[in-house]
Amino acid sequence: MKLAVLTTGGDAPGMNAAIRAVVRRSLAFGWETFGCERGYQGLFEDDFRPMDHGSVSGIINHGGTVLKTLRCPDFKEPDFRRQCYKNLEKRGIENLVVIGGDGSLAGARCICRETVLSLAFIPASIDNDIAGTEETVGFDTAVNTALDAIDKIRDTATSHERVFLVEVMGREKGFLALAVGLAAGAEVTLVPEVPFRVEEVVADLNEGREKGKRSMIVVVAEGAAEVPVLANQIEKGYKGEVRYSILGYVQRGGVPTARSRNLAFLFGARAVEALKEGNKAVFVGIEANRVVTRNLLELPEKKALDLEILNLAHLLAS
Amino acid sequence: MKLAVLTTGGDAPGMNAAIRAVVRRSLAFGWETFGCERGYQGLFEDDFRPMDHGSVSGIINHGGTVLKTLRCPDFKEPDFRRQCYKNLEKRGIENLVVIGGDGSLAGARCICRETVLSLAFIPASIDNDIAGTEETVGFDTAVNTALDAIDKIRDTATSHERVFLVEVMGREKGFLALAVGLAAGAEVTLVPEVPFRVEEVVADLNEGREKGKRSMIVVVAEGAAEVPVLANQIEKGYKGEVRYSILGYVQRGGVPTARSRNLAFLFGARAVEALKEGNKAVFVGIEANRVVTRNLLELPEKKALDLEILNLAHLLAS
Amino acid sequence: MKLAVLTTGGDAPGMNAAIRAVVRRSLAFGWETFGCERGYQGLFEDDFRPMDHGSVSGIINHGGTVLKTLRCPDFKEPDFRRQCYKNLEKRGIENLVVIGGDGSLAGARCICRETVLSLAFIPASIDNDIAGTEETVGFDTAVNTALDAIDKIRDTATSHERVFLVEVMGREKGFLALAVGLAAGAEVTLVPEVPFRVEEVVADLNEGREKGKRSMIVVVAEGAAEVPVLANQIEKGYKGEVRYSILGYVQRGGVPTARSRNLAFLFGARAVEALKEGNKAVFVGIEANRVVTRNLLELPEKKALDLEILNLAHLLAS
Amino acid sequence: MKLAVLTTGGDAPGMNAAIRAVVRRSLAFGWETFGCERGYQGLFEDDFRPMDHGSVSGIINHGGTVLKTLRCPDFKEPDFRRQCYKNLEKRGIENLVVIGGDGSLAGARCICRETVLSLAFIPASIDNDIAGTEETVGFDTAVNTALDAIDKIRDTATSHERVFLVEVMGREKGFLALAVGLAAGAEVTLVPEVPFRVEEVVADLNEGREKGKRSMIVVVAEGAAEVPVLANQIEKGYKGEVRYSILGYVQRGGVPTARSRNLAFLFGARAVEALKEGNKAVFVGIEANRVVTRNLLELPEKKALDLEILNLAHLLAS
Repeated sequence: MKLAVLTTGGDAPGMNAAIRAVVRRSLAFGWETFGCERGYQGLFEDDFRPMDHGSVSGIINHGGTVLKTLRCPDFKEPDFRRQCYKNLEKRGIENLVVIGGDGSLAGARCICRETVLSLAFIPASIDNDIAGTEETVGFDTAVNTALDAIDKIRDTATSHERVFLVEVMGREKGFLALAVGLAAGAEVTLVPEVPFRVEEVVADLNEGREKGKRSMIVVVAEGAAEVPVLANQIEKGYKGEVRYSILGYVQRGGVPTARSRNLAFLFGARAVEALKEGNKAVFVGIEANRVVTRNLLELPEKKALDLEILNLAHLLAS
Repeated sequence: MKLAVLTTGGDAPGMNAAIRAVVRRSLAFGWETFGCERGYQGLFEDDFRPMDHGSVSGIINHGGTVLKTLRCPDFKEPDFRRQCYKNLEKRGIENLVVIGGDGSLAGARCICRETVLSLAFIPASIDNDIAGTEETVGFDTAVNTALDAIDKIRDTATSHERVFLVEVMGREKGFLALAVGLAAGAEVTLVPEVPFRVEEVVADLNEGREKGKRSMIVVVAEGAAEVPVLANQIEKGYKGEVRYSILGYVQRGGVPTARSRNLAFLFGARAVEALKEGNKAVFVGIEANRVVTRNLLELPEKKALDLEILNLAHLLAS
Repeated sequence: MKLAVLTTGGDAPGMNAAIRAVVRRSLAFGWETFGCERGYQGLFEDDFRPMDHGSVSGIINHGGTVLKTLRCPDFKEPDFRRQCYKNLEKRGIENLVVIGGDGSLAGARCICRETVLSLAFIPASIDNDIAGTEETVGFDTAVNTALDAIDKIRDTATSHERVFLVEVMGREKGFLALAVGLAAGAEVTLVPEVPFRVEEVVADLNEGREKGKRSMIVVVAEGAAEVPVLANQIEKGYKGEVRYSILGYVQRGGVPTARSRNLAFLFGARAVEALKEGNKAVFVGIEANRVVTRNLLELPEKKALDLEILNLAHLLAS
Repeated sequence: MKLAVLTTGGDAPGMNAAIRAVVRRSLAFGWETFGCERGYQGLFEDDFRPMDHGSVSGIINHGGTVLKTLRCPDFKEPDFRRQCYKNLEKRGIENLVVIGGDGSLAGARCICRETVLSLAFIPASIDNDIAGTEETVGFDTAVNTALDAIDKIRDTATSHERVFLVEVMGREKGFLALAVGLAAGAEVTLVPEVPFRVEEVVADLNEGREKGKRSMIVVVAEGAAEVPVLANQIEKGYKGEVRYSILGYVQRGGVPTARSRNLAFLFGARAVEALKEGNKAVFVGIEANRVVTRNLLELPEKKALDLEILNLAHLLAS
């Protein structure tokens, strides 16, 4: 048997730990194992390299992905995909493991529908926005990275008695913002799922100020507001200084946390085992705290944010 | 209504976040809220202080516990306990939240059996050895602290081509060792639950060496072996250099991770809510990834290590 | 004797360690010691509090400043200053220690010229842009914070094979950018002191790409370019993807490094000793790696960046 | 021209950054450049590999040394050394850069005396115990690593109201202990240079306790005392709980700090430049905060600890 593994879409900490688990689990089954470079682009360019035990040594604690990654819009073109399939067929690769985020799912599903390949998908994303799993590889690391940044900003906020808006990633989903806001004890957390009115935020902050709070943190998911604009609007109504910070790409990288590594390990091993058992279109996830597999073509539509926790966090912080 | 909160036993990162959640949730219900200093000792010495919103400001990201903690063997004495109960009664405190580890459970159960107090117990321990919850407050932080230390030791191990034994906490249970060993990609992980023979470890290491591994990590739970003795025994059979390191107290402290803080938040809030709902002997835990409450007097006997993962980790690392 | 200490201007990590050293050194001389809140504003509002040994316990490892800080443009008004002097006189405070950055020097000099107070100035700034000292309190921490962020961004840059522009603080001086760029192995470092042409940067990057470099880091001091604009300009000429990240306020906070703490300790103790010795207008700095004092009214005009190192860094990185 | 570089003795964070600078500076001069594996042992075994620009990419932020290292007692044997010289001669290598600690100096001096090679020595050691330079590569990182551990231990010490003894590295010199103790605000710091009496330490601690200090930190250099024994002795006289922790190998590894990297950069570049200028036996160091070169055969005998700072630290902490 032959197996290839690739990473695609935005990088997430723990992807390397997942590659390591996939490769080693595959080798332990006696399979010939390949790494495909630059995601779907590497399928197209026939850019494979053989992987042995040593190929994945010393990478478990590195952020990013040694197989490189790319967003690949060309994969939407049937001709492009056909070339990919030809390359896989030519090499006799029957098993493919795709490690990627929400945007890579559609491509993986295409492969399942259009080929006889056995494919397993490992959800890796700092946004945790993939339905079918309670947590994605990389999420825990990104939360801690953003939290560490806010702990630092809190020093300045307190010293200068300012309100600080901090933008974290999350264009459509507030999972990261909620986890970060909760852990940071943020006075306000704004997520894309819950519309808000600026006046209410201002009222909250002024109320906090009257109670004696001089420095406050507002965590804002990327998709919830334009942070510079919002900061400006708040400044007009709030009776103190307002500043903002956009955390940006820092959230993607870094040494993966134990949890991100261990999730990657369990997902990677389970993915190969599921292929070994003869499954064709596999999604590996964690549900009720147990690693499970699902049919990749029948995933639930969406995952909902726990709004009760959001409200409770607000109640106890402010 | 009146509520008091205390921390007892070994400290764990996230205890402060738990205190914050308990105090703020209690205040939000309009209850008069107290902190009791030095665990059960403070009950005896009537060492309470009133807590308001600001009493728990700025502590969410600090290790240790602002209420101090103590191991209190005297609490096994009925006379000692009677004095504690008198103090609580005198002050009219009907609700008590105990934040502590495995060793503090017995005391909490005594209180439930011997008084009419409503008591909620929040499991906080770096060992994660408490049955009835999948995870304890502080465990995730300790895992990451130990992992960070091993990542550092790996630098030296690789540069000098040595085998390194690293002792992590865990006298009776290997939860911490397993999580750390898995995340570190340790070649061997030794836990108290699984007896081992030194010759097997040596054989494993020599086999690794023959495959080309020059540096290897052996994670050892405190209760699995005497590390200095074991290092000496291994050195006799292994064909290379062996060193060891005992991580010790470093694992208890530090800035709590997001996960430890958020677990503390959820446990703390739920504990007070359960008391509000009229429950008497409450244990708060996480099960199937959901916060649940149980009867503190009817907890399961023990929690078992996942030996399959231990074996898989070994298979893929070595 | 009486001494007061204040922090002013932007906060810098290590200010608390400096406050601790000043307070304890003053107490050890037997002086009555005060903290003045919110910098020069606290002088105006007569906002002093007595400091004892315990007032500065447990703050050595905290970022920010427990005395709070403020930029205080009003201090340029003679009437405002007169009120400040009255308050100091009324309280019988003869010694003042000012901990602050470049923007606070002018105010400190005014006090020296207009009063009989003995004043010592401790340079604390993440920018290291104060002439008269080789290093300021907080600089080393900010360098390491920015470096840690770039190490993370490098993961993503490498995985996606992108050029990343990273903006670090430094409106007029490139000390922070140079130290960070050197330590990060940045392919290009742009500082306000050295004008550059976009075409040259593009040519450098394309040359690197031709040599096989797929990911490169460009460190940009705040004052050297508008980063979003520059990224856009580079993208037009560079044959690959370009992204940018603005590190922002994260650089101000955080646990101070050993070096920032120890510099703070030495400066703080020396400041009080210099006042004890009868000096009137003291600037404490480090020169040729030794703590020295200078006349605050006769500081050198400016401090120059070491352009040779900048060039060498460029030569060896690209 | 040909140049070889090697690392020898205990590893120190920043060695990789030094290798990078040496290799790139040498290549920029157009020299053929080699890495020699495992220190002096590699000279003996003729274990060289060619180094190009890419050989040192992506290592600047890694602890340890990619060239491996070894303590090599055999190098004291003239026959062993003769074989080393033969190998170097055979390959036509005229320039050798040795990166190592105090124990490697003797070997480097032998080479200078016994051959016509041009040799430059770069001091790298976490102990900072090498005369002729104010700071060694790796020292700053080790100080911060130990400090971070003590900050964590302080959490537990405070929560349990205990005295904690923390052993840091330093068999003969207290540089690391002093820097760490100062930055940690340790109540007592014990170094090999200053004999102490246990009763005095106990008296200090009891005095602190009477003043209201419930938790205290005693930093102990490895060579100052047997920490477990000392803890036991102190416990007999101190009126509270005493615990100890031995930091051990953790102090050697880890991501190098900016300062360790930049010192490595400057030393590495300067070493090669000095060889280019025709120097024969070069020691690179930092003095009065400037990079300097000295004659390796005429280094000062020893470097003294600043006892004034030690005393001041004690005065202000306790």
